Amino acid sequence: MTQAASPGGPAPPRGRRPAQGDAVIDRAFALLGAFEPTRQVLSLADLTHLTGMPRSTTLRLARKLVGAGALERREDGRYAIGLRLLEIASLAPRGHGLRAVAMPFMEDLFHITRRHVLLAVRDGDEALLVERLSAHDADPVLYRVGGRMPLHSTGVGLVLLAGAPPAVQERILGSLPTDPAGREVPDTAELRRVLSDVRRGGFATVTLSVPWPRTSVAAPILGPDRTVCAALSVVLPLEAADHKTMTPAVRTCARAISRELRSLPCQDKPALGDR
Amino acid sequence: MTQAASPGGPAPPRGRRPAQGDAVIDRAFALLGAFEPTRQVLSLADLTHLTGMPRSTTLRLARKLVGAGALERREDGRYAIGLRLLEIASLAPRGHGLRAVAMPFMEDLFHITRRHVLLAVRDGDEALLVERLSAHDADPVLYRVGGRMPLHSTGVGLVLLAGAPPAVQERILGSLPTDPAGREVPDTAELRRVLSDVRRGGFATVTLSVPWPRTSVAAPILGPDRTVCAALSVVLPLEAADHKTMTPAVRTCARAISRELRSLPCQDKPALGDR
Repeated sequence: MTQAASPGGPAPPRGRRPAQGDAVIDRAFALLGAFEPTRQVLSLADLTHLTGMPRSTTLRLARKLVGAGALERREDGRYAIGLRLLEIASLAPRGHGLRAVAMPFMEDLFHITRRHVLLAVRDGDEALLVERLSAHDADPVLYRVGGRMPLHSTGVGLVLLAGAPPAVQERILGSLPTDPAGREVPDTAELRRVLSDVRRGGFATVTLSVPWPRTSVAAPILGPDRTVCAALSVVLPLEAADHKTMTPAVRTCARAISRELRSLPCQDKPALGDR
Repeated sequence: MTQAASPGGPAPPRGRRPAQGDAVIDRAFALLGAFEPTRQVLSLADLTHLTGMPRSTTLRLARKLVGAGALERREDGRYAIGLRLLEIASLAPRGHGLRAVAMPFMEDLFHITRRHVLLAVRDGDEALLVERLSAHDADPVLYRVGGRMPLHSTGVGLVLLAGAPPAVQERILGSLPTDPAGREVPDTAELRRVLSDVRRGGFATVTLSVPWPRTSVAAPILGPDRTVCAALSVVLPLEAADHKTMTPAVRTCARAISRELRSLPCQDKPALGDR
């Protein structure tokens, strides 16, 4: 699902020149995909460079997107993502629909723990962060709402991967990253064991060291069809004394959200998990 | 900014048949605009009806949008807004950028008050809700993130209107809704007085009766250029004894967010208020 111009790194200039007509959609999303967390405001020259499209094409497309509200043109002539996209995106059932149900429960968990509380869903071969609650005095922010995380190495990722269809699991297991010595990290067999433990135990605990030592405790949220549709986690510093006490709280909260998803009247139920 | 297919009501079928090329953008956003809070999952027939486009055009466009991640196609063949849009929309500086700064302070306010806490920005002649925190036991939800509210009759709306450029104020004052007897509600002169009070007092208190009696207490958030870039409010039942005590809390919190927006290093500052 990730576009070439993903938030993970700078978009490579694209040399292709799509034909008119439906290729306009591809070009429009290439242009929208040029925006990233570290570059939220771009000039026409930036957009031309990042998309590899001719300047005249970029300008025409940017103007159309401003007209549609997908982009905003600022007083200095540069462009930013427009609020109309936020309005449309708020109707994504697996994003804000899920979030609306989960949020009060996440508030409870945040209120009790005062730790980062994350809500994520699987999108293709990655986890996408739908919501994050953090305190003023929390450690530096690692994840942003709308950002992506790997399935094989994060708390929410492992929970989502453990509950994913076998084909997705095999795809991820077959394409693990390698360290400088060419070894898979994690080892495929080791990851299989971890996923099995996550399924059996109903939670995942992951320790990460970069950029700061922390522990993530994650649990699955089940949709009305009883399959894993999302993952909830609490992220806390590695040295925190309370990380063992977090597991029951996260699991309890994830169950409460799952039950709420099942008990909603049909018209209020977010349309989850059909992918 | 609102499209013909706005979230306010059903989209009128459109008879026009735009030419190829850039008109594809308009058609794509007409298609995306067919989704609404009460219809988050639509069949091809629904989309054809709601956009007024030929079935073959709708199908081709829907497929392109699925390819771009803007739509998701479900197992039953129907369509929903895709997570890729949430990912792009999360880069809107006036949406999630502002939200990221404001959220910990909103958490504080919610923690203390246990009332609905709203964050909104002005988009054209309407207020757009960027964030809402609500408790389990809060009264029924009135507003949804990504939804729009009138400027002339809501707490956040009045605060945003009072701080808007004179041209915007005159436009709103010149097009107020009328009651069945043809009278403007509110009266233009009355609204001018209210806006003047909001500017002088630094807050707005609004009582609304539909769909349930409630009070909104709102205060302005100032951007680095010291103009109103957003509004913060607490919404509570009309009978709540504490609505007078809310004003200092909301104003204090709005000032804290304003100060944080000013003090951020440049690269972290959301690009606000340039419209």
